[in-house]
Amino acid sequence: MILMKKIIDAAAGRIKPDKVLKGGNVVNVFSGKIIKADVAIAGDKIVGIGDYDGLENIDVSGKYIIPGLIDTHLHIESTMLTPAEFCKVVVPYGTTTIIADPHEIANVLGFEGVKYMIEQTKGLPINAHFMLPSCVPATFFENAGAIIDSKQIKQYISDPDIFGLGEFMNFVGVYLGDEECLAKIEAATQAGKITDGHAPELSGKDLNAYAAAGIKTEHECTTVDDMLRKIDSGFYVQLRQGSATRNVETLVKGVTPQNMRRCIFCTDDRHIDSLLYEGHLNYNLKVAVEHGLDPVSAVTIATLNAAECYGLKGYGAVAPRYIADIVVMSDLKDFVADMVFFKGELVARGGKPLFEVKVKPDERVLNTVKVGDVKPSDFEIYSNSDKVHAIDLIPANVVTKKAVVQVKRNPDNSIDIKGTDLLKLAVIERHKNTGNIGKCLIKNYGLKNGAIAQTIAHDSHNIIVLGDNNEDMALAVNSLKELGGGLIVVSRGKVLGSLKLEVAGLMTARPIEEVNQEFQKMVEIAHSLNVSKEVEPFMTLSFLALPVIPSLKLTDKGLFDVDKFEFVTLEA
Amino acid sequence: MILMKKIIDAAAGRIKPDKVLKGGNVVNVFSGKIIKADVAIAGDKIVGIGDYDGLENIDVSGKYIIPGLIDTHLHIESTMLTPAEFCKVVVPYGTTTIIADPHEIANVLGFEGVKYMIEQTKGLPINAHFMLPSCVPATFFENAGAIIDSKQIKQYISDPDIFGLGEFMNFVGVYLGDEECLAKIEAATQAGKITDGHAPELSGKDLNAYAAAGIKTEHECTTVDDMLRKIDSGFYVQLRQGSATRNVETLVKGVTPQNMRRCIFCTDDRHIDSLLYEGHLNYNLKVAVEHGLDPVSAVTIATLNAAECYGLKGYGAVAPRYIADIVVMSDLKDFVADMVFFKGELVARGGKPLFEVKVKPDERVLNTVKVGDVKPSDFEIYSNSDKVHAIDLIPANVVTKKAVVQVKRNPDNSIDIKGTDLLKLAVIERHKNTGNIGKCLIKNYGLKNGAIAQTIAHDSHNIIVLGDNNEDMALAVNSLKELGGGLIVVSRGKVLGSLKLEVAGLMTARPIEEVNQEFQKMVEIAHSLNVSKEVEPFMTLSFLALPVIPSLKLTDKGLFDVDKFEFVTLEA
Repeated sequence: MILMKKIIDAAAGRIKPDKVLKGGNVVNVFSGKIIKADVAIAGDKIVGIGDYDGLENIDVSGKYIIPGLIDTHLHIESTMLTPAEFCKVVVPYGTTTIIADPHEIANVLGFEGVKYMIEQTKGLPINAHFMLPSCVPATFFENAGAIIDSKQIKQYISDPDIFGLGEFMNFVGVYLGDEECLAKIEAATQAGKITDGHAPELSGKDLNAYAAAGIKTEHECTTVDDMLRKIDSGFYVQLRQGSATRNVETLVKGVTPQNMRRCIFCTDDRHIDSLLYEGHLNYNLKVAVEHGLDPVSAVTIATLNAAECYGLKGYGAVAPRYIADIVVMSDLKDFVADMVFFKGELVARGGKPLFEVKVKPDERVLNTVKVGDVKPSDFEIYSNSDKVHAIDLIPANVVTKKAVVQVKRNPDNSIDIKGTDLLKLAVIERHKNTGNIGKCLIKNYGLKNGAIAQTIAHDSHNIIVLGDNNEDMALAVNSLKELGGGLIVVSRGKVLGSLKLEVAGLMTARPIEEVNQEFQKMVEIAHSLNVSKEVEPFMTLSFLALPVIPSLKLTDKGLFDVDKFEFVTLEA
Repeated sequence: MILMKKIIDAAAGRIKPDKVLKGGNVVNVFSGKIIKADVAIAGDKIVGIGDYDGLENIDVSGKYIIPGLIDTHLHIESTMLTPAEFCKVVVPYGTTTIIADPHEIANVLGFEGVKYMIEQTKGLPINAHFMLPSCVPATFFENAGAIIDSKQIKQYISDPDIFGLGEFMNFVGVYLGDEECLAKIEAATQAGKITDGHAPELSGKDLNAYAAAGIKTEHECTTVDDMLRKIDSGFYVQLRQGSATRNVETLVKGVTPQNMRRCIFCTDDRHIDSLLYEGHLNYNLKVAVEHGLDPVSAVTIATLNAAECYGLKGYGAVAPRYIADIVVMSDLKDFVADMVFFKGELVARGGKPLFEVKVKPDERVLNTVKVGDVKPSDFEIYSNSDKVHAIDLIPANVVTKKAVVQVKRNPDNSIDIKGTDLLKLAVIERHKNTGNIGKCLIKNYGLKNGAIAQTIAHDSHNIIVLGDNNEDMALAVNSLKELGGGLIVVSRGKVLGSLKLEVAGLMTARPIEEVNQEFQKMVEIAHSLNVSKEVEPFMTLSFLALPVIPSLKLTDKGLFDVDKFEFVTLEA
């Protein structure tokens, strides 16, 4: 009661508020107006907008005061940064709330991985909400590190640290009425929690069925038509600005005064370089305004709408009684955050965090590369035919084509790729040391005299390795194991470079600048080995094992035809 | 799980939905569009919008399909109908959800009265949510039948049948930081429940303080300025169309595409005749559209906005997974409901209910007129001065003026009103038989040779009686007691008419047509006794005991100067 009394007294002007932001332009997301006024803060709450004098007065004249930004859907793992390091980067951009889906680490470590993410963000100046990944493994055509089935969903979904059920990628299972899928969603609904969607281009009765299952959001829209269809069907639609999936510029064209309230923003997957150079959710706002959205709508989408969609009571507005998560923006064009307040405390200024993060070492997430040593001969590929299926890479695209290529065979039926533009690709199960290796050929990547291997391979995150000779491929895998996970480039029997990702083979607990520098060096090394200039070496590799994106992909279980949704033989 | 499977299968078109509304114009509150399509229903849910064929197909071509209407704030007692009879009236108008504040019965019977209201609506085809009245008694300048203090609020607020804390009329107590007021609101907040507001014309820092207390809605706006101020401060603003308080026509002028989402509708107090002749919440929509609001916004305000404000998940839209509370409207101009569906069942058609209500007799709410017999001499008014304070009635207004009048006194100092235009007014405590009687003089009502008494007297609902002679006043009160509560008119020693309100002295369990007929007859009788044509006899009387409305009012404790907020002597 004392705090409430203090709030009321400060609001009414009987006592001085703790802090007053003086003379800024306050964006009012309820009325769409920008109002020149002071913002009074007591404790962790905004108590009044008007004319106030505080114990501390902070001059923000000429600046814009907006609510803290809410990223409604993201995978922290995509940045290669641990949650704490990630937080140090995004809070200074103005992101004060995230709704993270730890889908990647869950595929490596199951619910223990989810718990790690939750624990690592406790005490940080960000509202970090975690969804329970709904589709682990992403498909049954691969071996991941864990299975989270409907029983486990039922068991974990009521955990107060679990915010909801993560993007339901198996949308086909949902609209076909698969009992296991429905049981998962029903468990979330029963627990009063939201389920995020993922249903690219779904329409008609299948979309009705997906909505009828109780799924509330959708972040896979890439066209205005798809977006409008989904808004009509009752979904909140996330305007996504990832590193690869830059949908905001297209989708803002579909925002109207009538449907604006059903639009929210997300980043989904931002990679380390775009996170460093472009920003985080503030970049969504910048791009949206650049492409014609009015700035106040952009702010409303990033704040109030997100809070309403996810039931974040007391968040998303600069108004009395709201939590004092506030960003002072220099303008409403570039959206460069000048100051960031979290629960009333100044936590970032001029793009720099004003807080330290504590590293909490956690044995659970280390040493996750569980494979035996491999030999060069493990990478021999045998065929009964001269005509084989091969993955045909499309540069700057996660979609691949199916190729049939003519190969030269040795007397023992092993394929000889010397002198061709073909490379060998292998996926090695790395969670349970099963010894599973899937192998195939790939064209259009462009490497010479070497191998590249990594432990980031969506979504099961097995080891994926690619090379033009067995020896370097074996060396790359064995060295990657020794490294404990990450990215590695090998040439002619020597390791040319590596980026250690000690946490689940996906993330590292080092600062963004350091990791980015190493990563850029790795990209250079790869390109020095003749990797096509149009190919981003590591990102490209990471999607070659994802058997839900067309057309031909490789898992530890073998070559998978995504269009036919079945395994295919090497022989064409 | 079986139901969910059925929903998905019906949505996807693999099985026939239970019902399909064929060929109507569906109002989409998410996008603001009107879409010609079928609406498929399975069980209690909407499963798809599109092209469907059901087990039952209902032709609605040419009609408009909108979500069930949500009245966000009302006092059922104001209709004089019991909840079940009320429901029979409003459901056919298209109201499928009400958020009722049983403030009147709570002032008579405390929490038992609230429970009665809750119990009486169970099983009816309406979503009836009940707020816990926050200000019982409304003031401490009167004796009500109960006190609900912060301890009781704490005790009751978590009850699953209690939806939130009712309109916080003591707004002064809130912004002044009164501990008892704050404790009540804090209890609601702790329980995760909403608190409704009531703060006419409040502004500036006091309004900030009222908002900072955590109050979320406001239905007392009568001007656009007040409305916009409150939206800016984070309130949802109710556009109210009561019988006396007709604010919609004014307030729609303040609705913008930006702030529309923060607007909701309510009726607050609708009386029996306007309920019967004009309608219920559908009348808000009609008036709003008449005064320039676009019809789809009107529908959105009445449905989605209300559901969002009050956290009514799954309500407020015609979309997959939403509860099938649907109104088929003949047009979006007069808003005459053609069919009303509640949880997928057709419950009203052509303005008539298709359901019966069960009367559940409840001894708790009967025999609530607890007074001893009164004698004519009890109405003698004594004064030590010839100049006395008197209530000066303003016709068609609940506000009164303070008058000072010259009176003739008998030798014993009793006032003689014969031959004047003055009447005697008395308020008799009727809940605990304390014998308290407050008495004063009143002008401008216009009765001759009789008395009018009733048990409706806001907010404490003591007996209020008015007359030009002591004998008829005593007869009126004694007869009213015998009646068990209601309205009564007496003249020259005879009861000319009565309307029995057996439930708490406020409501009756008879059909609206019958009650209205009796009521209109009572009004005629009153006017036949020379009550001024400009005065609605009973409504006027009912507000003369409300010591929060300016300027001079009478309670069982005496004459109250509302402007000075203190009791005054009879002598001027």
